[in-house]
Amino acid sequence: MIHETAIVSPLADIADNVTIGPYSIVHENVILKAGTSIGSHCEIGFPSRLAEGRPLIIGTDSLIRSHSIFYEGSEFGDRLVTGHRVTVREKTKAGENLQIGTLSDIQGHCTIGDYVRFHSNVHIGQHSTIGNFVWIFPYVVLTNDPHPPSETMLGANIEDFAAIATMSIILPGVTVKTGALVAAHSSVSRDVDADTVVGGSPAKYICETSKVKLKDGSGASAYPWRKHFHRGYPEDVVTQWLKDLS
Amino acid sequence: MIHETAIVSPLADIADNVTIGPYSIVHENVILKAGTSIGSHCEIGFPSRLAEGRPLIIGTDSLIRSHSIFYEGSEFGDRLVTGHRVTVREKTKAGENLQIGTLSDIQGHCTIGDYVRFHSNVHIGQHSTIGNFVWIFPYVVLTNDPHPPSETMLGANIEDFAAIATMSIILPGVTVKTGALVAAHSSVSRDVDADTVVGGSPAKYICETSKVKLKDGSGASAYPWRKHFHRGYPEDVVTQWLKDLS
Amino acid sequence: MIHETAIVSPLADIADNVTIGPYSIVHENVILKAGTSIGSHCEIGFPSRLAEGRPLIIGTDSLIRSHSIFYEGSEFGDRLVTGHRVTVREKTKAGENLQIGTLSDIQGHCTIGDYVRFHSNVHIGQHSTIGNFVWIFPYVVLTNDPHPPSETMLGANIEDFAAIATMSIILPGVTVKTGALVAAHSSVSRDVDADTVVGGSPAKYICETSKVKLKDGSGASAYPWRKHFHRGYPEDVVTQWLKDLS
Repeated sequence: MIHETAIVSPLADIADNVTIGPYSIVHENVILKAGTSIGSHCEIGFPSRLAEGRPLIIGTDSLIRSHSIFYEGSEFGDRLVTGHRVTVREKTKAGENLQIGTLSDIQGHCTIGDYVRFHSNVHIGQHSTIGNFVWIFPYVVLTNDPHPPSETMLGANIEDFAAIATMSIILPGVTVKTGALVAAHSSVSRDVDADTVVGGSPAKYICETSKVKLKDGSGASAYPWRKHFHRGYPEDVVTQWLKDLS
Repeated sequence: MIHETAIVSPLADIADNVTIGPYSIVHENVILKAGTSIGSHCEIGFPSRLAEGRPLIIGTDSLIRSHSIFYEGSEFGDRLVTGHRVTVREKTKAGENLQIGTLSDIQGHCTIGDYVRFHSNVHIGQHSTIGNFVWIFPYVVLTNDPHPPSETMLGANIEDFAAIATMSIILPGVTVKTGALVAAHSSVSRDVDADTVVGGSPAKYICETSKVKLKDGSGASAYPWRKHFHRGYPEDVVTQWLKDLS
Repeated sequence: MIHETAIVSPLADIADNVTIGPYSIVHENVILKAGTSIGSHCEIGFPSRLAEGRPLIIGTDSLIRSHSIFYEGSEFGDRLVTGHRVTVREKTKAGENLQIGTLSDIQGHCTIGDYVRFHSNVHIGQHSTIGNFVWIFPYVVLTNDPHPPSETMLGANIEDFAAIATMSIILPGVTVKTGALVAAHSSVSRDVDADTVVGGSPAKYICETSKVKLKDGSGASAYPWRKHFHRGYPEDVVTQWLKDLS
C-alpha cells in the first residue's frame, strides 16, 4: 500500500496497513499509526530545527489528502482528516477527529481540542488555543502580534462550540467564549461573551445567539447549534450534548 | 505527449492530442477532449463517492496548470483555463471559456455560465449559481450557510456581467443582479440591484454603475464595462455586446 | 545534490552546490546561483511568452520551499527565502533577503526592495512598488484595477518600513508612506501619511504610530518598530537603523 514512487525513510515508524500515495515523501522522524492514508504529492515530517527533535505523530485511521505538508514535531489524535494542500508547522498539538480544510495553514505552537473543524483556507497563528467542537470557516485568520512586526506573541483563544464565520479575524489575545458566533467579515478586538453574536469591524455585540432563528420557518432558535446540527458527529457525542442541554 | 512519469489509468478516455505533464495522475473516470493540456503534479478525476459515478469531463482545448486537483463528477465546456493549484470538487457544471485563477477552490454542486473569470484565490461555496461573463476577484468567497455550522445550504446567485471586487463575501441566498459591481472588502447581505454599485460591511447602495467614471480623464462612464473592456473576448461576442447596448 | 527524480534542463545555468529536491522541475531559461536550495515538487522557470525571453535569476544562498512555482522572466537578489506553494509570475524584480510566505502569489510586473517580508497568503498585484524593510501580513492584497474588470492598471506603492496588517487591501494607486501602519481588516482607499496608523473600511486616520505602546507595560512607543524588533536582520543593518533614528 506504499506506492512505488513514494520516497519513505526506512527510519519512519509506519504501521502495517498505512497507505502512501504516488510522489509523496515521508521523512524519518514520523510515526503513522494503523489505518492512516496519505495522498499523493505530500511531504510528511519535513525536518525542522524548531521541532527540537520531536516526531510527527499521526493517530489511527487518519486521512491526509494530496499536496499536504506536515513538519516534524506535531501530534494529532486519531481520525485526523485533511483537505488538499494543508500546511502544518511544528508543535501543533491536536486532539481526536480534527478536520483541516484545503489550503489551511496551521502555523504551529498551538493547541487544538477534539472534534474541531477548520474549513478551507483557515490560518491559525502561533500560540492559538482552540477548545472542542469549534468551527472555523473559510479565510478566517487567528492573529497573534499586537504591534506588528514585533516579537511579542499573544495567541487567540477559541472556546468550545464557538463558530467563527467566513473572512473574520481574531485579534491578538482575544477570547471567543463558549458557544459564541462571530459573524462573517468581522474583526474581533475584544473578548466575546459566551452564547452571543458579534459582528462588524471592529466587531460589536449584536444579540444573544438564541435570537437567531432557523431558516426553516419553525421560529425555533438556531443556537446552540448542537441542538440541531449533528454533521457527522458520533451518536454518543450527540446524546451527551442533548443531555447536557436539557 | 503524455510524460513518462505521469500515471494515467488505461480506463481514462483521453483524446489523441492531449498533453499530460510530469508527475501528474489521471484516474479512470475521466474524459479529456482534444487539444487539452494538463500541467505537472496534478491529480485529475480524484475518486469520490459524492460524484455518484459521474465522470469528470474537460472540454476541448483546455489548459489545466500545475498542482491542480479535479474530482470526478464535474463537467466543463471547451477552453477551460486554470491557474496553478486549483481545486474543483464534485458536481460543478460549467460552460465554455471558464477561467479559474491560481489557488481557487470550487466546492462543487454549483452552476457556472460561459466566459466566467475567477481571479486568484476565489472560493465558490456549494449551491452557488453564476451567470455568463461574470468576474470574481481575489479572495472573494461565496458562502452558503445562513446559521453556521448548520446543514442548511443557500447558495449565492451572481447574474451576467456582474463583478465582485477583491476580498468581498456574498452571504447565503443573496442575488447580485446583472451588471452590478460589489466594491472591494464588502460583505453583501441583501440582493444587489442591476447596474448598481454596493460597498461596505454590511454593503450599502453607493450609486448606479454609470456614475463611475473611467480613469482616463474622458469623463465617460466606466460601466457597463463591456462597452470598454474586451480583455480577450472573441470578436463575435464583443460585437453582440455592443449591438445589445446600442 | 540534484535528486535523481528531479527533471532539470541541461540548458539551465545551475551553480555547482545547488540542491534540487525530489519531483521538482527546472526549465531551461533559469540561473540558480551558488548555495541555493529548491525543495520538492517545485516548477522553476515555467515558460511564458510574457517573460519576453528573460531568464529567471535566483541569487546566492536562496531557499525555495516545496510545491513552489516560479515563472521565467523574474530576478531575485541573494538570500531569497520562500515558504511552500509560492507562485511568482513574470517580471518580478526583487532585492536581497526577500521572504515570501507559504501560499503567497506575486503576480509579476512589480518591484520589491531589500529585506521585505511577506507573511503567508499575500497577494501582490501587478505594477505594485514595494520599498525596503516592508512587512506584509497574511491575506493582504495589493490591488491594481480602479474599475474592474478593466485593462487599466494602477499599482499600489508601499514605502520603507511600512507594515500592512492581516486581511487588509490597498486600493489601486494608493501610497502607504514610510513607517506607516495599516491596521488589520482595513480597506485603504487614500494615501497614508508617514508614521501614521490607519484602519477600517474605508481606512481612516487613527493616530501617529508613536502613540501605540509596547505591550510590555513599559509605556514606551512600539514604533518605529525598528527601534525594538530586529527579527533576524543582520547586525550592521540594525546598527544603521539605530544611528539614523537617534
